[in-house]
Amino acid sequence: MERILITGGAGFIGSHLAEKLLAQGHTVVSVDDLALGRRENFRSYANDDRFTFIEADATDVDGMEQVIRANGIERVYHLAANSDIQKSAADPGIDYKNTFATTYAVLEAMRRTGVKKLFFSSTSAVYGDKRGQALREDTGGLAPISYYGSAKLASEAFISAYSYMNGMQTLIFRFPNVIGPRLTHGVIFDFIRKLQVDPKHLEILGDGTQCKPYLYVLDLVDAIVDFSFRTREGVEIYNIGVDTATTVRKIADMVCDRLGLTDVEYRFTGGNVGWKGDVPAFQYDLSRIYATGWCAGHNSDESVRATLESLEI
Amino acid sequence: MERILITGGAGFIGSHLAEKLLAQGHTVVSVDDLALGRRENFRSYANDDRFTFIEADATDVDGMEQVIRANGIERVYHLAANSDIQKSAADPGIDYKNTFATTYAVLEAMRRTGVKKLFFSSTSAVYGDKRGQALREDTGGLAPISYYGSAKLASEAFISAYSYMNGMQTLIFRFPNVIGPRLTHGVIFDFIRKLQVDPKHLEILGDGTQCKPYLYVLDLVDAIVDFSFRTREGVEIYNIGVDTATTVRKIADMVCDRLGLTDVEYRFTGGNVGWKGDVPAFQYDLSRIYATGWCAGHNSDESVRATLESLEI
Repeated sequence: MERILITGGAGFIGSHLAEKLLAQGHTVVSVDDLALGRRENFRSYANDDRFTFIEADATDVDGMEQVIRANGIERVYHLAANSDIQKSAADPGIDYKNTFATTYAVLEAMRRTGVKKLFFSSTSAVYGDKRGQALREDTGGLAPISYYGSAKLASEAFISAYSYMNGMQTLIFRFPNVIGPRLTHGVIFDFIRKLQVDPKHLEILGDGTQCKPYLYVLDLVDAIVDFSFRTREGVEIYNIGVDTATTVRKIADMVCDRLGLTDVEYRFTGGNVGWKGDVPAFQYDLSRIYATGWCAGHNSDESVRATLESLEI
Repeated sequence: MERILITGGAGFIGSHLAEKLLAQGHTVVSVDDLALGRRENFRSYANDDRFTFIEADATDVDGMEQVIRANGIERVYHLAANSDIQKSAADPGIDYKNTFATTYAVLEAMRRTGVKKLFFSSTSAVYGDKRGQALREDTGGLAPISYYGSAKLASEAFISAYSYMNGMQTLIFRFPNVIGPRLTHGVIFDFIRKLQVDPKHLEILGDGTQCKPYLYVLDLVDAIVDFSFRTREGVEIYNIGVDTATTVRKIADMVCDRLGLTDVEYRFTGGNVGWKGDVPAFQYDLSRIYATGWCAGHNSDESVRATLESLEI
């Protein structure tokens, strides 16, 4: 059993990860600035003796060093980030600070304290728009088109040298769209909110053909925990996801079904990109992670359905 | 004729670049914090009416925005960086701040002011240690092993999204070792300094077989100016260098010749790496830049010789 730090621990994915690690008997310190994370997300285990929540800014190197020392941390899951790509388009400083500077602070605090085990949540956005190409972990010419993708690729860059220079064992998963209980933004969340305001009409950004793979958060968290306890020295990178994908139009249909709405008029804003910086479609080559025997429990449509069933509407 | 900003303008390469741009009739504003840059480097044109030197920290976003607005800047050459890889091994914050945060500040200041034309000095260190592979611009699995390489790759990552989101015209050269007049560090500089202290013995890090291509700074500066006035929207990346390479041992021999020393005893520290984070050998695939018709004026050995001849010893 280990003493584990999760940054972004009150967030959508971080809170599920904390729950899973506690269930396995580990001690978990969760750091979150509660900008996007919420106390409700860890309510079910807030009083667990092996759980500590610290409201703190993960860009503070000295503060993170202090958290690691004071709690005898042995392993770090760094999930703190701005998870809302669309939001930072008008203010790139959000991703500079919340997505990149958090990574630097975590790495520097680990270097100073000698902690060697790291998991990092990266993203398909590091590749940029490479439509028509099955994305492999070693695909070259990475050219992110969003500030979020840039900040995650910049994080991977610093992780590379920190891992080499300090003998760290690092696991990086490049996440696709991840959905499930506690979701706080994204297309499913937006559609529900819009239909609650106006159940007759639904504005859909783009032409509805944008098509992405959706991974269920509990499948992801299982994989994070399984793989992270099997790392070796160096950096291992995996694309993680599902082979299937779901169009935005199909998501709209499923959301309407879930809300019991019929005859909703869809209004498409047109074009095949939801917003500038969005990658409208991508497909991973998953052969690297499949070679380990792993496979997600839900395909893309099933992930959407399970998410809709989990939400209290 | 344009109004041009050079960050790191008092440095080894930046000061040559300013000189060339002034000679072509442009107006040049040079920003440097004088941490590594030196006033002597721009002494010959310090009084030129079209030249302005501003001592400032290029990590200050508001300050850089102010410099751009006050001087009507139309084009930026971003060369400010920690150029001493070895130094930051013990303090990664040096590269975080001087190599990466400068890039972010320049990009953000350009976004706020609408300046679209950018040249960025990247490096072979972004690739990491890929011995036995000819490095192409689209080689995948970039894994820098130095904090310097990380900070340059992180810079490229942010440049990618900033260029896409703001319609910028960006040229990136990935530099090899660059040498010539005004050199302030590196193996040639170190050998001269050591032999001035003790002309009988020379300590050589590693086993002397480390072999790298050396590019002459005036060849590089000519290429930067030629290529940067022919950019289109988007990001163009070129490896730049020479096909030939020079071993550390040969450099030692040439330095001894230049100093008129004979019978110097070489003491090798052993191993084939000079220091942790050093990439002991690499070879570019230069076909992309050669396809434009460009070729360096000096090969690797000639660059070393021309550098030695230029130094006042």
